[in-house]
This record gives sequence, C-alpha cells and structure tokens, in this order.
Amino acid sequence: MYGGPAAYGESMTKKDLGGKNCLYPMPVFLVGAEVEGVVDFTTVAHVGILNVGEVNYVSIGLGKGHHVNRGIKANREFSLCLPSEDMMVAVDHCGIASGAKVDKSKVFKVARGKLSFAPMAEECPICMECRLHDTLDYGSHDIFIGAIAASYAEEAVLSSGAVDLAKVHPLLFEMFTRSYWKLGERAGSAWSEGRRYR
Amino acid sequence: MYGGPAAYGESMTKKDLGGKNCLYPMPVFLVGAEVEGVVDFTTVAHVGILNVGEVNYVSIGLGKGHHVNRGIKANREFSLCLPSEDMMVAVDHCGIASGAKVDKSKVFKVARGKLSFAPMAEECPICMECRLHDTLDYGSHDIFIGAIAASYAEEAVLSSGAVDLAKVHPLLFEMFTRSYWKLGERAGSAWSEGRRYR
Repeated sequence: MYGGPAAYGESMTKKDLGGKNCLYPMPVFLVGAEVEGVVDFTTVAHVGILNVGEVNYVSIGLGKGHHVNRGIKANREFSLCLPSEDMMVAVDHCGIASGAKVDKSKVFKVARGKLSFAPMAEECPICMECRLHDTLDYGSHDIFIGAIAASYAEEAVLSSGAVDLAKVHPLLFEMFTRSYWKLGERAGSAWSEGRRYR
Repeated sequence: MYGGPAAYGESMTKKDLGGKNCLYPMPVFLVGAEVEGVVDFTTVAHVGILNVGEVNYVSIGLGKGHHVNRGIKANREFSLCLPSEDMMVAVDHCGIASGAKVDKSKVFKVARGKLSFAPMAEECPICMECRLHDTLDYGSHDIFIGAIAASYAEEAVLSSGAVDLAKVHPLLFEMFTRSYWKLGERAGSAWSEGRRYR
C-alpha cells in the first residue's frame, strides 16, 4: 500500500469534492469591536484554536471587506462571544448587516470587561476579550490572532465551576448547506474512552 | 457607557474565568501523516478555518511533543479526517497513544488520494488532504497551516450532492470538562434567519 505514487488513489472510494473546506461544524461567535467609536458586532464561525498555554491564542478569519476589521486593526482589541440557540435571529442579522450601513451597537446589551475596545454582547452566556497579537494576510481575508485577555461565563451555564455546554446551547455552523445546528448530547470523556481500544 | 476606562467592567455580571480558552465546541479530526515511512494518526480538535477562497487554508495546533509533527514537517503533507460518533473509542485511542511508542498504522484502513504523504482513515466519512503551507511557532505548539489539496466524502453522507452533517454524526470536543459531544439537530439557515430581525 505504501509502494509509491503509482498506488495512490486506488483505495479511494469516496466522492471527490475538489479542494472544498470540510472543516465543519464550527462554533458560531459574535466578534465585538469598536469602529471609530461605535460598537460593532459581526458573526464569525471561521475561528480556530492555536495553542494551549499560559496565554491562549485563537484566530478568526474575516473577509477584508468586513467593517469590523477596521476597528480591530485600529484598536488592536476585540471580543469573541458565544451566543446561545435562542439568539439565532439576532446573530444571523449581525452576519448579514454590515456595520458600514447599519448601526449594530444596540442589537445587544454591551458589557465591558478589562479591555477598552472589546465590547461584549451581554446576552451571550460566554464571552472572551482578546488583544490582537498578529494579523495574517490571506488574500481576501484578514486572519486576526487574538491573545485571550479575559473570559467570562454566566453562572447559570456552570456546573461545579466548569462551563457546561448542555446549559450553553451553542450554535454551530457549516458551509455545505449554509446552516446552523444545535449541540447534541455528551458522548464521552476525552483521554479516557480510548483506554477501551483493543 | 462608552465613557472611558473608568466605566469598564461595571456592566460585567458574569463570572471571571481568567484567560481560559472558551472557543468550544470544536470538531474532532484525525490528523494523518507519515513519520519515517510509518503511517501515524493523532487526534486534534484545536483546528481552525482561515479563509474562503480558491485555495482554502486550515490550521491545526499540535503540542510540539506530538510524534506526528515530525512527519508533517518532513513531508510537508498531512490529512484531516472527520470521524463519526461510532469511531469515538479508536479516535480517542489515537489521542492517548503516542506514535513514538505505539504503531497506529493499523487502527484504520489507510486510504490514499492525490498526495504522497497524507494517509487518510477510510472509516471517516469525510477526509481532506493538505499541503503544508506554513508553520507558526507558538511556544509549546506547532501551528500547521494546510492548503486543502483535495476533499472526499462518502456518498452515504451526501444529500443532493452536499455533505449532510445529520448523516455524518461528527464528534465535537470541549476542554471545560474534556468531553466529546454529538451534533444535535439543524437549527436554521445562515444568511437568512436574520432577515426576521426587527
């Protein structure tokens, strides 16, 4: 099977989708920033976790045309807020309406934490404040890498002090059918189920 | 409310979790690569989507101690395969067992596509082959940025030609309680539900 290029592809029984991105489902977040003094929220599911460390870094990929990008670049701060299912209409609105044309500063109650330019949507059960660590240029997209400065969770979504996603009811997204999905039930314990492997 | 630093924090009613990463749940993937000629799979949920474009870029964050990193660096190719729920035990095994000590080349049937060093787990309903585009150094972690060279899906998980996540049954992961979760039901249409916003 490892005989060289001639053998490659022979075992492929799946349908070729081209270079389509299949890295889904992804959690849906609201990105909060200030653009010329006005709070703006946009919706993003093209996010990423980079590391696990003393400082935790995350990425968001936003088309360069997004209004919010200007605020992130100018103030070098932004928030990432995790909405719950029941916020879907307002969240999707923030993904449709451009902050260049529509004032989205009143869509949510604005909460403030430790940073100056990372407005958070109070209605979201979980929020993070990020400092802009780096910006990568990927053609049509700005990739903003944020260092998480602070994180917050509503007491109501905690169980024994830890975030309980069953209480959060996050929204998930995929581009295959451009749909939002709900989270299902807990399936098992990581770094544990595998001990049963034979 | 936007009066300046003095006012910040007053509106924060949530519990402060420090700089904890709350960017969950994330989809669970198997990373496939070859390390010195041996197929290795490891489990990763610290993934990311960077852009949407003619070439699609994704990221994976792996602790530098992972055996698979050596293969990715040497061959500059890797796969990302999306397992289904029923593969949880084998998938978690690949996250527990190090390829430096355990031969994981027989855990799954190895499928080959277009690349030479991107072995895929045939049992996964969706697989992608990636060329290593860049490697970012984040202290304890290598962030591998892959350009998706090809993507594949089992016919059984397609509906009208598009991937139907209800048929895929992906696994999701969160670090709060180190758990795997199932996907729930479809909640709505992106770039559409928001039109109902008033």
